[in-house]
Amino acid sequence: MGSPAPLDLLRPRSIAVLGASDRSRWSEAVFANLAAAGFAGAVHAINPRGGTAHGRPAAASCAALGEAVDLGVLIVPAQAAADALRDLAASGARHAAILSSGFAETGEAGAAAQRDLAALARDLGIRLLGPNSLGFINFVNGAHVWTTPVRSPSRREGVAIVSQSGATAYFLSTLAAQWDVGLSHVVATGNEADLDLAAFGQALLEDPAVRSLALFVETVRDPAGFVALAEAALHERKPVIVLKVGASEVTAKAALAHTGALVGDDRVFDGACRQYGVIRAHAIEELLAAAEIAGRTGVLRKGGLGIVSNSGGICEIAADTAAARGIELPALTPDAAAALRETIPGFATPHNPLDLTGAITPEQCGRVVEIVGSQPDIAALLCPYYEVPTSSDDVNDRLSALHAALARSLNAAGVPGFVVSYTATHQSPLSRDIVAGIGLPYLACGLDRAIAGVAGAMAWSARLREGATLPAAAALPIAERPRSEHAALRCLASAGVPVVPMTLAANEDEAAQAARRIGGRLVVKIASPDIAHKTDIGGVALNVEGEAAVREAYRAVMAAASRHAPSAGIEGVIVAPMRPRGIELLVGISRDPQWGLVMALGLGGVWVEALKDVALRLLPLDAAEVKRALAGLRGATLLRGGRGVPAADTDAVAEAVMSIGQAALAFGPGLATLEVNPLWVHGDRVEALDALCVWNEGN
Amino acid sequence: MGSPAPLDLLRPRSIAVLGASDRSRWSEAVFANLAAAGFAGAVHAINPRGGTAHGRPAAASCAALGEAVDLGVLIVPAQAAADALRDLAASGARHAAILSSGFAETGEAGAAAQRDLAALARDLGIRLLGPNSLGFINFVNGAHVWTTPVRSPSRREGVAIVSQSGATAYFLSTLAAQWDVGLSHVVATGNEADLDLAAFGQALLEDPAVRSLALFVETVRDPAGFVALAEAALHERKPVIVLKVGASEVTAKAALAHTGALVGDDRVFDGACRQYGVIRAHAIEELLAAAEIAGRTGVLRKGGLGIVSNSGGICEIAADTAAARGIELPALTPDAAAALRETIPGFATPHNPLDLTGAITPEQCGRVVEIVGSQPDIAALLCPYYEVPTSSDDVNDRLSALHAALARSLNAAGVPGFVVSYTATHQSPLSRDIVAGIGLPYLACGLDRAIAGVAGAMAWSARLREGATLPAAAALPIAERPRSEHAALRCLASAGVPVVPMTLAANEDEAAQAARRIGGRLVVKIASPDIAHKTDIGGVALNVEGEAAVREAYRAVMAAASRHAPSAGIEGVIVAPMRPRGIELLVGISRDPQWGLVMALGLGGVWVEALKDVALRLLPLDAAEVKRALAGLRGATLLRGGRGVPAADTDAVAEAVMSIGQAALAFGPGLATLEVNPLWVHGDRVEALDALCVWNEGN
Repeated sequence: MGSPAPLDLLRPRSIAVLGASDRSRWSEAVFANLAAAGFAGAVHAINPRGGTAHGRPAAASCAALGEAVDLGVLIVPAQAAADALRDLAASGARHAAILSSGFAETGEAGAAAQRDLAALARDLGIRLLGPNSLGFINFVNGAHVWTTPVRSPSRREGVAIVSQSGATAYFLSTLAAQWDVGLSHVVATGNEADLDLAAFGQALLEDPAVRSLALFVETVRDPAGFVALAEAALHERKPVIVLKVGASEVTAKAALAHTGALVGDDRVFDGACRQYGVIRAHAIEELLAAAEIAGRTGVLRKGGLGIVSNSGGICEIAADTAAARGIELPALTPDAAAALRETIPGFATPHNPLDLTGAITPEQCGRVVEIVGSQPDIAALLCPYYEVPTSSDDVNDRLSALHAALARSLNAAGVPGFVVSYTATHQSPLSRDIVAGIGLPYLACGLDRAIAGVAGAMAWSARLREGATLPAAAALPIAERPRSEHAALRCLASAGVPVVPMTLAANEDEAAQAARRIGGRLVVKIASPDIAHKTDIGGVALNVEGEAAVREAYRAVMAAASRHAPSAGIEGVIVAPMRPRGIELLVGISRDPQWGLVMALGLGGVWVEALKDVALRLLPLDAAEVKRALAGLRGATLLRGGRGVPAADTDAVAEAVMSIGQAALAFGPGLATLEVNPLWVHGDRVEALDALCVWNEGN
Repeated sequence: MGSPAPLDLLRPRSIAVLGASDRSRWSEAVFANLAAAGFAGAVHAINPRGGTAHGRPAAASCAALGEAVDLGVLIVPAQAAADALRDLAASGARHAAILSSGFAETGEAGAAAQRDLAALARDLGIRLLGPNSLGFINFVNGAHVWTTPVRSPSRREGVAIVSQSGATAYFLSTLAAQWDVGLSHVVATGNEADLDLAAFGQALLEDPAVRSLALFVETVRDPAGFVALAEAALHERKPVIVLKVGASEVTAKAALAHTGALVGDDRVFDGACRQYGVIRAHAIEELLAAAEIAGRTGVLRKGGLGIVSNSGGICEIAADTAAARGIELPALTPDAAAALRETIPGFATPHNPLDLTGAITPEQCGRVVEIVGSQPDIAALLCPYYEVPTSSDDVNDRLSALHAALARSLNAAGVPGFVVSYTATHQSPLSRDIVAGIGLPYLACGLDRAIAGVAGAMAWSARLREGATLPAAAALPIAERPRSEHAALRCLASAGVPVVPMTLAANEDEAAQAARRIGGRLVVKIASPDIAHKTDIGGVALNVEGEAAVREAYRAVMAAASRHAPSAGIEGVIVAPMRPRGIELLVGISRDPQWGLVMALGLGGVWVEALKDVALRLLPLDAAEVKRALAGLRGATLLRGGRGVPAADTDAVAEAVMSIGQAALAFGPGLATLEVNPLWVHGDRVEALDALCVWNEGN
C-alpha cells in the first residue's frame, strides 16, 4: 500500500496548524484543545506573516520549521489552501485536516476548487480530511484537533463517532459526556474531497479502543466503500450504528442545499444495512445508546432479554417496549422460579420482567440477578433500578449497598447486563465517580433508549451468528440481450433459474401441436417484445384445454394483439402448462445509479402494489440473505400456505431467487431491469412464469 | 351533588395524618414534604398511643383534636384502616388518602377487605384516594402528601400527572424537574377502591393551573368513566396524553401479578383514544414531553411545523423525524423567501427546515423567526438552537443576546414556538434562571421527543377543530333477534341500513320466479341459520343468469347443503342481484366485556385477514368519526377506486356504517356480534350484501 492509512491521519505524532492566528476562533480552539488534552507531540503554529500565535512563535511556513511534520491542519482561506498543501508536503507530511470552508458547499465554483485541491493532494501524496470539516478528536492519544470546546469522556475507549455533519458530531459527543458514554474518536468528515466517512470508519475498526461505530450519514458518496466498511465490521465483530437522513423528501432537498450532496434512495440504503448487519437509528439519542450498548455487549448469544426492576410500572412499560422492538422476554424456568422463591420468601409469582418491589436486601437483589442472568434463554439483562445519585444529598448507605451488589452480580453474570436509569438522565462528577468506583455497568440513557439499543445489539448479533454473506459463485456471462418474455425465460433457464416449460408457437398449428405434447390445462399468451401488459389487452388465455380450445385461444390472443397493438412485432404465442394456485412472488432487479443492481423481493398482488411490502437487497446475495429478506416481509406468513396452497419450501425459493440475482449479474452492465413476475411457488416447486428484461442501450 | 368533588380531596385546607410516627419512613416523608412546601393549613399528627411524632404532639384520635379536619391521610396498618376512617368521619372530614398497603394487591382476602373499606367509606360519606397509594402532590397549594422526597417545579402550573403506579408518577415528576417542566399536581391512585384515575383526571380539568393531563394507565377499571374524562377534556380544550401498558401479552401477565388489575384489550383502548382525541405515548419521556408541549401550545391552528436551526444536520434529522410522525413542513411562500433573503444577504435558498448556520446575528435570527412564524401554513415553530447554558463556563454575551432575541421573537410570533435542546438534556439552577429571566419558551427534552410531542399536539388539535363527536340519534329498539342472513338483512334494512334487495325462495319455483322479477345476473345462496360459511361448502352460486341456470343453481346449493350440513335447518335460498366489482368493507360489531359494543371497520380480504388492518371504535359513533376511522386505515387509498372500480363516496359510506352501528345498539343488550361482510361500495352506492347476528342467550 502506497498511501498512508486514514487511521494514521487520526493519530498524528506532530501537528502543524497552517493559518494559526490569535484572530481566528478556530485556531484558538484547536490550540486550546490540544493543550487541554495534553497532546504529547509537537504542535507548530504556521502563519506566512510570522509573529506569534497563541503565545508561541509562528513559523512562516512548514518548510521554515526545519523539522518533519506528521499532520497539517489547515485553517487558511480557501484560496490559500493549495499553497498550504504544497508547503506541508515539503515538510514530509502525508496527512492534512482541511478545516477551511469555501469549497463544494458553496456551489459549482467551490466544487471545482475542491476537485483541484484533491488532485493536488493526490499528486503530493497527502491524504485529506475535509475540507469544510470541524476537525477530529482522538481521545486515545490526545489529538483534539477540534474547533469548539471539547469535554473528554471518563472512558477513552468505546464509541467512535464519524459524522458528515460537524455539528451533529458535536451534539453526539456532548450527549456522550452527559450520559458518561466512553468515546474513542470523533471525526467530522466535511466535504470528503478525499477520505470519506466509510474510509474513516473502516480504518477506525482496526483501533482496539474502538468498540463500535456511530455514524451520521447525509449521503453515501461511495456505496462500494460503505459496503466494504460494513463487511469489515462484520469481520471485526464490531457493530456499526447509523443515523442516516434523507428518508423524507424534504430532507433530500435540505441536504442538497446544505452540503451539495445527493441523498440516495433511503430504501436501498435500508436494504443494504439489513443485508450487512448495520443497525439503523432514528434519533441522535438512539444512535448513541445503541452504539454504546452494542459496543459493550459484543456479540450476544441467541436469546431474549431479562428484566429485573424495583418498580412494577417500569416492568410493564419494559415489556411493552421490548415487544414493540421485537425483543422476547423469555419465561423463567421452573428451577429459576423455585430458586427465586427460596431467595425471597413469600415472593409469589416470579416471572420476566421481574418486579422485586423496593423491599428487598442488596444481597437478595444480587442473588436474583445471578439467577435470572444464568437462564439459558436470556442473552442480556437490563435492571431499571434506583438511579446512581448525581448529588450528595441523594447518597445513602442502603442505595450504595444495593448498587455495589448489582455491580458484583452483573459483572459476574454469564451474559452482559446493565443497570439503567428509569428515564434519560445526566451524570454528574459524583455519579461518574460512583459508577467507576464500584465498576457498575450503568446506562444513563433511560429505559426506552436502552431497550432500543438492546434491540439493535440483538439484531446485529443475530446477523453475526449467521455468518457473513458469501457472494454466490458468479454465473457465466450471458451475451444475449433477450427482448421478449420467451427469450428472457429461455436465458434465465440456461443460467440455472427454474422456469416453467414452454413452447413458442409461430402459428395455430404449432400451438395445437404444443398443446398435444404438453397436455392438460394450458396458458396461451401473446409473444411480442413490444407488448408489456399482455393481460390488459386480452393477450392471455388461461385454463385452455384441448386442441380446439387452444386453436380458439390462439386466434383470440392474436386478434386482441392486432386490435390493441397493431404495430407490435408478433413472434407468435407462448404455450405453457397452467399451474395450480400457489404463492406468487415478485423478483424485480433494477440498476440503481449509486448502488448498482438492487433486488426488490415481495409477494405479488396487493402486497407489492398497495403495501409496497418489498425487501430491497444489493446483488450479489446468497440464499441465506434471501431467506432473511423473505422473513422480513410483512406478508411473510403467507409463505406458510393455507387455503389449499402448500407452504413454500423456503430453501427452494431462496435458491431460485438467488439464481435470478446471479443471472442478472451475468447479463452484464447493459441490463437496466430484470423482472420475474410471478415467481410461482407451490411447496418445493418454484418456477418463473413470466420475465421481462429492459436494456440500457448505451452500455 | 351530595359527594365532595375529588378536586377538593386534592386541595385540603387541613390535614390529619393517622398513623403518624417517627418510626414510619412514610410518615416522616409526608410531614417533611408538607413542611418544605410551606403548606398553609393545619397538619395534625394522630396516633392512638399519643406521645409526639415529628416533633409535635400526637393526638390519640381525630375526635380528640377538638377541631374539624378536611383530609385524613392514613398510614395505619391495613387492619386498622376501618377504625381510622370512622375516627376521621367523626371529625367531619369527607376525604381520605389511604396510603396503607395490604389490600387488593395482596390477593383475594385483601380485595375483600378493600371492598369492605370502600363500603364503609360510602356509608361515612368519605371519598377515597387509594389504598396502596404513594399519595398526591398539589404544587399549587403546597399539599405535598407524598411518601418520597419531592422536588418542586419552577412553574407550579402546567402538567397534572395521574398515575396508577406510584413509582411511575415519581419518575415522571423527577424527569419534569430535570427538564424544568411546570407541574400542577401528581396523583398516585393506587388500588382505586373508590375514586379512580378517570375521576381524578376529570376533576383536575377544572383546575385552572392544569394545562394538560399526563396519565399512566395499567388498567381502565371504568371505561365509561374514562370516556367521560375524554369528553370533558375535549370540552375543556385540555389535552390528555396517556401511557398505557398492556399492549404485549407479557405485560398483561405482569400487571395481573402487580396490581391484581385486568388489562383490557389494548386495541380497543387505542380505538377509544383515537375517537376521543386522547394522545397515546409509548415511553415516559414521550408522555411528559407531549403533555408539556400540548399543554403549552393549546389548540393549534391547521398547518404544519416550521423549523429554524443553526445546524444543517439537525434540519435534516428534524425533517425525517417530522415525516415519520406525519407532520408536514410547509414550503415557505415566495414572499417569505424574499424577506429572508433581505434579512440575511447572500442567503441562497431559504426553505423549511431553515438552516441559518452559526454565522448570523441575534437580530437576524429574531427576524427570521418572525418571518417563518407568520407563514399562513405554519401552526407551530421549533428552533433547535444553542442550548441554554447549564454552567457559568458556557455563558457568553453572544449566546445571551441570541437567546434573548429568540425569546422576544417566539413570544411575539402568531403561533406557539419553542427553542428546543438538540438532544435530551437537563436543566440546572442557572439554566432555569436564564429561561425564567428572559421568558424563553424552552424545551430540554431534545428534538426527537419534541417532534413527537408536537405531533401529539397537532393530532389533538385537529380532533378538537373538528368538534366533539355527537352521538347519533338513537334508533328505535329492534325486538327481533334475527338468526339467519335473510332475517338479519331485513332487520338492518328496517333500521335504515342500505341493504341489497333480495328474495327468500323456499323452493325452486319461487327461486325461478324471483329470478324473473329481478332479472340480470344473480347470486343464489343457501339460506340457513345453521350454515355460517356458505361459500366453503358450495352454498353460493355467483353470476347466475336465466331461469334454467337459476333452477340449476338452486338444486346445486341445496345439494351441497344437505351433503355438508345434513342436520342444518334450511329456509331455502336467497336470490339477489349480482353486484359489479366494488370496494368491499367489513363492519364487525362485538360486545367487549369492558367497553360494550365495539365496531371493527376494515377493508375486506387480505386487509383484514392477513394485515389486521381494522379501525376499532366505541359505539355510538357519528359519520365524522367513521370518516376519520376510514382515513386511518393503511389501505385507505383503496377507497379512491381504480381498475374499473369507482371511488367510494365516503359520505355515503359513513352514513351506512353509522346506521349499522345504530342498528347494533337498537338490537339491545342481547346482541353479541353483528357482522356485515361485505358492505359493498360502488361510487355512491353502498349496500350490505351479507350479515350475521350472534346472540347472548342469557341476556
